[in-house]
Amino acid sequence: MPAGLSDGLPPEAGFEAAIVERLMAAFGAWGYERVKPPLIEFEDSLLSGPGEAMAADTFRLMDPISQRMMGLRADITPQVGRIAASRLTNAPRPIRLSYAGQVLRVKGEQMRPERQIGQAGVELIGTTSAAADAEVILLGAEALNAVGVQQLVVDLNVPTLAPAILRDAGIADPKALIAALDRKDMTAVRQSAGSLTPLLEALIHAVGPADTAIEALNALKLDGDAAIQRERLRAVVALIRAARPDLTLTVDPTDHRGFEYHTGVTFSLLAPSVRGDFGRGGRYVNQAGEPATGFTLYLDTLQRALPASAAPNRIFVPHGTPPAEAQRLRGEGWVTIQGLEAAKDDAAEARRLGCTRLWRNGQPVELK
Amino acid sequence: MPAGLSDGLPPEAGFEAAIVERLMAAFGAWGYERVKPPLIEFEDSLLSGPGEAMAADTFRLMDPISQRMMGLRADITPQVGRIAASRLTNAPRPIRLSYAGQVLRVKGEQMRPERQIGQAGVELIGTTSAAADAEVILLGAEALNAVGVQQLVVDLNVPTLAPAILRDAGIADPKALIAALDRKDMTAVRQSAGSLTPLLEALIHAVGPADTAIEALNALKLDGDAAIQRERLRAVVALIRAARPDLTLTVDPTDHRGFEYHTGVTFSLLAPSVRGDFGRGGRYVNQAGEPATGFTLYLDTLQRALPASAAPNRIFVPHGTPPAEAQRLRGEGWVTIQGLEAAKDDAAEARRLGCTRLWRNGQPVELK
Repeated sequence: MPAGLSDGLPPEAGFEAAIVERLMAAFGAWGYERVKPPLIEFEDSLLSGPGEAMAADTFRLMDPISQRMMGLRADITPQVGRIAASRLTNAPRPIRLSYAGQVLRVKGEQMRPERQIGQAGVELIGTTSAAADAEVILLGAEALNAVGVQQLVVDLNVPTLAPAILRDAGIADPKALIAALDRKDMTAVRQSAGSLTPLLEALIHAVGPADTAIEALNALKLDGDAAIQRERLRAVVALIRAARPDLTLTVDPTDHRGFEYHTGVTFSLLAPSVRGDFGRGGRYVNQAGEPATGFTLYLDTLQRALPASAAPNRIFVPHGTPPAEAQRLRGEGWVTIQGLEAAKDDAAEARRLGCTRLWRNGQPVELK
Repeated sequence: MPAGLSDGLPPEAGFEAAIVERLMAAFGAWGYERVKPPLIEFEDSLLSGPGEAMAADTFRLMDPISQRMMGLRADITPQVGRIAASRLTNAPRPIRLSYAGQVLRVKGEQMRPERQIGQAGVELIGTTSAAADAEVILLGAEALNAVGVQQLVVDLNVPTLAPAILRDAGIADPKALIAALDRKDMTAVRQSAGSLTPLLEALIHAVGPADTAIEALNALKLDGDAAIQRERLRAVVALIRAARPDLTLTVDPTDHRGFEYHTGVTFSLLAPSVRGDFGRGGRYVNQAGEPATGFTLYLDTLQRALPASAAPNRIFVPHGTPPAEAQRLRGEGWVTIQGLEAAKDDAAEARRLGCTRLWRNGQPVELK
C-alpha cells in the first residue's frame, strides 16, 4: 500500500461512518443542507480562489475525454464555494451548506501523515455578521459533543490582525514579521519592528484563556482595520460565552498557520489530550467574492480520540431456522449471523463467528 | 465540469447519503461489517484478480513518494477481496464484509454516463454453499425494500453454464458462441453450433419467470459441470422462494454482460420502470483463491428511482432568541434556521429562507 494510505477495518471503519452520520445530523439540525462535489474536477476550477492554497498538495490527472488536466481534490471547502457561486447563486442568502467526503493529498504532513483524509464540514455563505462567526463555532462544538468529544477547547485566532497593524504602520514587507509573530519569536520582533516593538510584544502576550486575552487586547492602542478586527473577536467571544458558558475558549491572536486564505476570525477545535486538531475554520471570501465562514472536521483525529463503540448484539441463527424468525430478530435490533450449513455444535460455531448469543428453540441463549 | 462528473445539490445529495445509511444499516443487521479501502492504491494490487476486468476503466497516477504507478479505484469489490485475503486472512470464515464509497471511471458507459458513481455492497467470503448465494440475494432485496424500492425484480444468471456446456462438448474456441448466446442470436448459434444447436436453442429459450425457466432447464440433457451449475441455480431459486415468496424472480441463464470474473450464479436487481439496474453481483473467486459471492448497488440508479424525501421541519428562529430555545427545538427534531441579524419582518425572512414555521413568543407559528 502506498505511504499514507491504508484500509479501514472492522470495527473502526463502521465507527468512522457512524461518526460522520452523527456529525451530518447535527449540521442538518442547524439547517445546513448537504452538497456533494465530485472527487475530481478541472484543475483551473479546483485550484481557484480558496483552492489555490492546496495547489502543491493536489494530484493531477489527464482527462482523456477533454484532454484537459484535472485535479483530485485535496480540500472540499473551495468546491463548496464554487457550488454556492455557480449552481446555487440564486439561492437565498445566507446559504448554509454541509459536506462529508474523502480528500487526497500528494504528501502527508508530520502531524497528519495520512494522504487520504475523511472530512466533514459546513460553510455559511453570504453574511458578514458576528452572529455567523459564532454560529459555526457553536455548531462545531455541538456536533463534536454529539459524537462524544469531551473537554473541547475552541482556540480563536485573528490571522489578519497582525498584518492589519503592520499595514497601518506602513511596514512595506511584513512577511518576516508576521512569521515571527506566528512563532512568538520575541528576538526577531525586537530586531525588526522598530517603534512597533512594544505593541507587537504586547500582542504576542495577549494569548491564553479568552477573558484574559481579550482584556490584554483591549489594552492595546489599535486604530482602523486592526481595531475593527479586535472588536469582531470580542463580539464573537461574547456570543459564544452567552450561548455556551461551559465551553473552554482560548485566544491566540497571532496564530497564522493553516489559515492561508482567511480574512477574519478563525478557530481550531481541539482537546488537551488528543494529538492534532478535530478541525479548523473561520472567515474567508469565496470565488464569487461572497463573505463566508465555516469549518472542516478531520475524521482521523476524531477516530483517534473516541472509543470505538461496543460490539453489537450478534446472534447466531443456525442453518434451517425459518427465514422469518431471523427477519423478526433483525427487526428487534439483533445482528443475525446465519448458519449457511448444518454445524456439529451450534454454540461452538456461534462463538467461532464472534456471536454472543445463539438462537435455539425460539429463544436467544447467552453464550458463556 | 468534466463530462460525467457533477455536483450533488440539496436535497438530492442529502437524500443519497440517507439511502447509503439505510443500506449500510440493512447490511449491518445481517452481520456484514464495514471496511473502507482507500481511493487509490498501487496499480498492480488494485488490478489483480477480479480487479483485472476494470483495468481499462481505471485512472492512473504517479506516486511521487514511491515513484510507482497507482490506480484510482473503478470498483470496490476487488479491494474488499484483497482485504479479506491479507489483513483479514485470519478472521473466521465465512467472513461478511460491507462497504460504501465512490468509484471513478476513465469513461462512462451508454447506460451509465457518470464517471463517478457511489457504490454500496457486501461480500460473503469463504463459503461455496447455495445458502450463501441465496443470502446475498435476499439481503440485497431486503436492503432495497428498506430504502423504498417497490416492484423489485431479481434476474438470475449462470454466465458459466454455456461455457461449461461448450467445454464438455469439446468446442475449442467458444468465445463467439458465448457472445451469440448472450445476445440470443439464434442465427449465429445455428451457423456454428453443429450438433449442439438444439440444446443451445433450448437454453436460449429457458428464459423468463423463474419457475418456467427452471422447468425448461430441467428438461435439458446436461452432464458434468453444466448439470452441477443447473442444480445450484435450482437450489438458490428454491431457497429464495422459501424465504421471500413475494419476490419476482426471473432467470436468463445465458446473460453474460458485466459478469467477466464470475464463476457461478449471478444476478441483477432491477425494477420494471427504472432505467439501469440497482445493482448486480454473484459468485466469484477472490485473489487468495477463496470462494465468494456478493453484490454492488449503484447509488445513481437508486436516486433516479426513489422520490426525494419531503422537506424537513424548518423553523426560523429570529435574531435575539435565547440559544437554549433553539437548542431545545433541535432536540425535539426541528431544523432551526437562526436569524443572524434583526429582520424587519421575521415572517417574511422565514419564508425567504425556506422555513415553514416561525418561532414567536415561545411557539412555532405556521406560515401561510
